[in-house]
Order: sequence, then structure tokens, then C-alpha cells
Amino acid sequence: MDRLRIVLVGTRNPLNLGVAARAMSNFGALYLRVVNPYEPSFREARSAIGPSAEILANAQEYQTLADAVSDCSFVVGTTAAQNRELQHSIYRLDAAAKKVRERLASGKVAIVFGSEKTGLSNNDLSYCQWLLHIPTRKQHRSMNLGQAIAVTLYELCRDGREVVQSYDSKELAASSDLDRLTVVLLQALDVSGYSTSETHPGTEVKVRRLVRRLSLEVDDAEVLTGMLRQILWKLKTL
Amino acid sequence: MDRLRIVLVGTRNPLNLGVAARAMSNFGALYLRVVNPYEPSFREARSAIGPSAEILANAQEYQTLADAVSDCSFVVGTTAAQNRELQHSIYRLDAAAKKVRERLASGKVAIVFGSEKTGLSNNDLSYCQWLLHIPTRKQHRSMNLGQAIAVTLYELCRDGREVVQSYDSKELAASSDLDRLTVVLLQALDVSGYSTSETHPGTEVKVRRLVRRLSLEVDDAEVLTGMLRQILWKLKTL
Repeated sequence: MDRLRIVLVGTRNPLNLGVAARAMSNFGALYLRVVNPYEPSFREARSAIGPSAEILANAQEYQTLADAVSDCSFVVGTTAAQNRELQHSIYRLDAAAKKVRERLASGKVAIVFGSEKTGLSNNDLSYCQWLLHIPTRKQHRSMNLGQAIAVTLYELCRDGREVVQSYDSKELAASSDLDRLTVVLLQALDVSGYSTSETHPGTEVKVRRLVRRLSLEVDDAEVLTGMLRQILWKLKTL
Repeated sequence: MDRLRIVLVGTRNPLNLGVAARAMSNFGALYLRVVNPYEPSFREARSAIGPSAEILANAQEYQTLADAVSDCSFVVGTTAAQNRELQHSIYRLDAAAKKVRERLASGKVAIVFGSEKTGLSNNDLSYCQWLLHIPTRKQHRSMNLGQAIAVTLYELCRDGREVVQSYDSKELAASSDLDRLTVVLLQALDVSGYSTSETHPGTEVKVRRLVRRLSLEVDDAEVLTGMLRQILWKLKTL
């Protein structure tokens, strides 16, 4: 990601510069270049504080897209691909991200985003090797700039990231744990009158199946058994 | 995607409601629910025009998260997973999206986003079966709300063309079914002395989470609630 440059052309809204920088910070793309930004917006965005402030403070400003991408060996434009005859190859984001990752191995890559209103001009596009497109609904193609940047960077990082935290493989309760729970529950059902000596056999089978459908984790089985023990104790002492 | 509900809890910024709706429109998630929004923001967002106006106009407003997800059989929270000990399983977005697509085959699924400042409270989280996390840089975990929604929906639509086969699954209990079960269990725990008025609030959150981990089918939730009602009745009459 050290070789990736995010290039924003003609951005007007200071909030968009801010959220663009935030997404870049979130996904570890730390080099921002701005072409011909609306000056008051750029100043305002630069004065922001917070974890993405450094990205904005270090952002480089250019007069033309040509200058902004002059040291990049690969330049990718972004487009909502609507209402326009485009003269470029257009890749869907997932395919495009793969190609960008390959290119990053051999040089700097720029991904270029146009202004909020008009996107990239044909002149801007002519500096791009090909175009990237985020698949959206036909009825509403055009994305918010900050969201388009976030989605693009998310996809780009897809394969390169650490696992943050995973609680997904908790140990499931063993059959004997489930049996203990079942026994206490059945006793509570008997004492409470839910089942009688006649219905007990049927209830027992029903409850055993039900308990097994719960996919209980070890700890939860223990907690539930404890709860039922307390309830049973109370039922018996009253 | 017709069964997906995006739930925003305590959103303050009208711009965030607007861009949330825009991303939803981009990716074809058309049903927005808001819990306890900052009223002036909600009014302002609703008066917006443009392709996502319909989503905001049709957004449903709720007082509590419990009400907002009551008809959903699966509730997924979102978290930046920082500075907090979480009691839930956390799945990375790509794995989470796969699971959500499976769940959408058998009922409504809610994905819940917290407020800009604080995210979801522990009480909010206790209504969730598990949590989803967008992998971001350790140094800057927390994402902008609108960007987090866009990235989540992008990932969710990723395989939208390929039909996800639903396994032969029974209908899962809705959130309101689980609430009924939770209430009766809590009453039984109080009456039996398992929890006291002091420990009750902690127990309540713990039990709500536990019940949601059980992946209960509709029929089983009903049977269990019936069992507990009988037990509770007996506890009270003795």
C-alpha cells in the first residue's frame, strides 16, 4: 500500500476530503494527492484534527492530473459508467483490485476519483490505463465520493489484512453436558406439573432432541444448567 | 435483499442518514429502520430529494431496538471491536456477509449500526446474535458511519448473482419470540432467587445474549416458553 496514491480531482466539499482521508487511514492508504481542489475546502479539510489529519496535512496539491500522476507507472480511473461512451476498458472492482495489487508489486499506482458532480472528464480519463467500476443498481449507479473510496480501498485490502479478532470457534457443549442440562430440565418439568408420569417418557425424548438443536456452547450449557438447578431447588423447597 | 433491514440506532447527523440511504439505494437494500434518531436530523434527511429519497421517506421509526428488530429472525450488530470486551462472536465482514446471505433465505435479517460517537451500547448488542467487523488498520479502527454501511452492503452484494442455496432449514424464531422467552426466564430466575434486584440488570443482558446464541427455531422457542411459563406458575403458586 506504500505505493498506492489516491488522487482526487476537483473535489469541492471539505467533508468529502475529510471522509476520503478517514477511509484511507482506516485501510492504510496513506498518500493523498489532490488536483485543483476548491481551495477553501482544501484549507478547511487540512485544519481538521483526528487520526486522519496526518494524511490531509501531507496531501500533495497539483494543478493538473498529468502532474499528479507523473511518477506513477499505472493510473486507474473510476467511473459510474453511465450516460457516457467510454473509450476505455472497464473492470469491475473485484477484478480491478486484483490487477492493481499485481501492479503495485512493480511500481506506484494511482487511483483517480473525479469531482462529486461530474466525475472525471474525458481529458482526465485519457491519463488512465483503464477504468474501475463499482457494481451498483442500474436505477442508481452513482455513488457518494467518500463511500466509493471506502469501498474501493476495502476491496483492495481484501487479501492483505490481519485477522483482527475471532471468537467464532467456541467449544460446543459435549453430549454429557447436554444430558446434565436435560436431566435438570426434566425434573423441573415434572415438579412444575408440565409433564406427568404418563407423559414423561414422551417429554423426555422431546426435550433431549430440543436441547440438542440449540448448538450450545460449553459455557452456556453450564450457565443454563445452573439456572435450572436454582429453579428446581426453589420449586422443591417451597 | 428484500428481507434485509438496515437499522440505525441513535444517528445524529442528517448527512449520515442521507449517505446511508444513498449507499442502500446503490446496492439495492431498500428498507431502512431508525431507532431514536435525533429528530431534527431525521426530519431534514426525510425532506431530501434524489434517488434515495424514497428510502428515507419510507424509513420506519422506532423507540427501541427491540421494537425495530421484533420481526427479524436474525440480528447482526456492527462493531469496530476496539476498547471493549465483547461477549459476542465477531465475524470479519467477508465471512459475516456469507452467513447473512444464508440467513436471508429463511427470514428477515437486520444489520444494526450504532451512533457516530459511541457505536452500539452493550444493551443494544444484547439483541444481536453475533457481530460483524470490517477489518481496518489497528491504528485507526473506527469507520465513518456512511462508509461502513457502503462497504458492508458492497460485500453483501458481492455474490448477488450467484444464488446462495438455502440449506433445508426450519424457520427461525423472530426477535419478539426470543424476547417473550427471555422475559419468562428472567421472571423464573427472579422468583427462584437466582438473580436479585441488584444483579437483575446484568442478568437480563446476559440472558438476552444467551438466548440469542441458541439459534432457536420458531416451534422450539414456543415450547421452551411454554415450559418456563408452567414452571413460573408453579413457583408463584407454591
